[in-house]
Amino acid sequence: MSDFNNKEKAIDESGTRIEGRNAVIEALRSGKTVDKLFILDGCHDGPVMTIKREAAKRDVMIKYVTKDRLDQMSETGKHQGVIAMVAAYDYSELEDIYALAEKKGEAPFVLLLDGIEDPHNLGAIIRTANLAGAHGVIIPKDRAVGLTATVLKASAGALNYTPVVKVTNISRTIEELKERGLWFVCADMDGTLMYDLDLKGPIGLVIGNEGSGVSRLVKEKCDFIAAIPMKGDIDSLNASVAAGVLSFEIARQRLGK
Amino acid sequence: MSDFNNKEKAIDESGTRIEGRNAVIEALRSGKTVDKLFILDGCHDGPVMTIKREAAKRDVMIKYVTKDRLDQMSETGKHQGVIAMVAAYDYSELEDIYALAEKKGEAPFVLLLDGIEDPHNLGAIIRTANLAGAHGVIIPKDRAVGLTATVLKASAGALNYTPVVKVTNISRTIEELKERGLWFVCADMDGTLMYDLDLKGPIGLVIGNEGSGVSRLVKEKCDFIAAIPMKGDIDSLNASVAAGVLSFEIARQRLGK
Repeated sequence: MSDFNNKEKAIDESGTRIEGRNAVIEALRSGKTVDKLFILDGCHDGPVMTIKREAAKRDVMIKYVTKDRLDQMSETGKHQGVIAMVAAYDYSELEDIYALAEKKGEAPFVLLLDGIEDPHNLGAIIRTANLAGAHGVIIPKDRAVGLTATVLKASAGALNYTPVVKVTNISRTIEELKERGLWFVCADMDGTLMYDLDLKGPIGLVIGNEGSGVSRLVKEKCDFIAAIPMKGDIDSLNASVAAGVLSFEIARQRLGK
Repeated sequence: MSDFNNKEKAIDESGTRIEGRNAVIEALRSGKTVDKLFILDGCHDGPVMTIKREAAKRDVMIKYVTKDRLDQMSETGKHQGVIAMVAAYDYSELEDIYALAEKKGEAPFVLLLDGIEDPHNLGAIIRTANLAGAHGVIIPKDRAVGLTATVLKASAGALNYTPVVKVTNISRTIEELKERGLWFVCADMDGTLMYDLDLKGPIGLVIGNEGSGVSRLVKEKCDFIAAIPMKGDIDSLNASVAAGVLSFEIARQRLGK
């Protein structure tokens, strides 16, 4: 745990947003993982164009915002029209997930998050992935929270062990992983009771957005739809609880229990 | 859902803290559920003594704090030395839990929370309780979050259906419920694998505090200790995820799956 505590401290000190033109250009060029770039709408001068070019090279998402929004976000008060949100932790590659499964001699088990927005949920899910024996977590670049300092903290150290990969397009990643032998399952009330599905093989578990669930496009790519047995009066579980219940159903089946 | 939305709105408007002497006396006398009372340390004049008496009659916890602390908490700036935290939602009685189980013709299934502090966790657990078929949730008066507006929101409407009971002493409540036929199970790594326990009968599931787990005294009262199978590198699941995994193991056994 000492490693983790040190890392957390380092992040608290450095912050997770970088403000001002030179600082942002430097961050991009140094290879830091920039999650999102906020640029003053209508700003086209030299340094800003340089930032846009560097961001484009690295496939960084840009959001154009008003001066009021930037002022609100700014911690230093000196943003000069640009603020970069940087990852509190480095992302892994898909190959790291496969390598971990191979090292453990297990069929790959991956969690794909189709737009988790709450950092506490993302942290709790990474923690669950680690303990349920998943080999990695895949998150999309857009409309989802990245590896912020809050996520790092909520993961309770799991980020040191469980690779998290960020991809541009979840549907395309599902296609790619299917070709490599994974089966995909997502959760929905209209699915087959999860106990009646065989979830023991190489598997990708898809968890949807907190409000809207799994998107139609992603759902269509899934091989199975699993239902958690619901006895209650309301609609759905919290996203990280649903991820936990499904992950441990996979763990149960893998244990042969 | 419309009832729930109305209630939520009403709470947002009225707030969950009541400030000033007359307002607090009125709240206590009207029977509003006061979760905690903050009183200026060293304040002994007439109205404050009246408040203390009314609070004692209703078994309300009092915390004596400095003027700085009260100023910080105050939303109106006119606390006059007293601030009451009121529940965003009314608590139920133990009998309501039994009544619900009886109405459904099921063996009672209760979640006992031994000191959950995070309102998002409490909300998510009430939501889980509802969907896993539990008949109620029991929380302690001290060192735990009560039914605040955040909990209400995080419960996603489940508070309208699942009774939440607040008790003075969790250990004593366990004794009482044991006499009425419940068996108690708590989670710990050194327990029996949860699949190997019979969790189908009348049951109380104990979930511990986010940081310190189930307290020794409460653990000693439990009939079983259940272990969630842990494959990972870190210590423990998020409390609301652990509650979800265990609750749905009980649900699975009750379904005969």
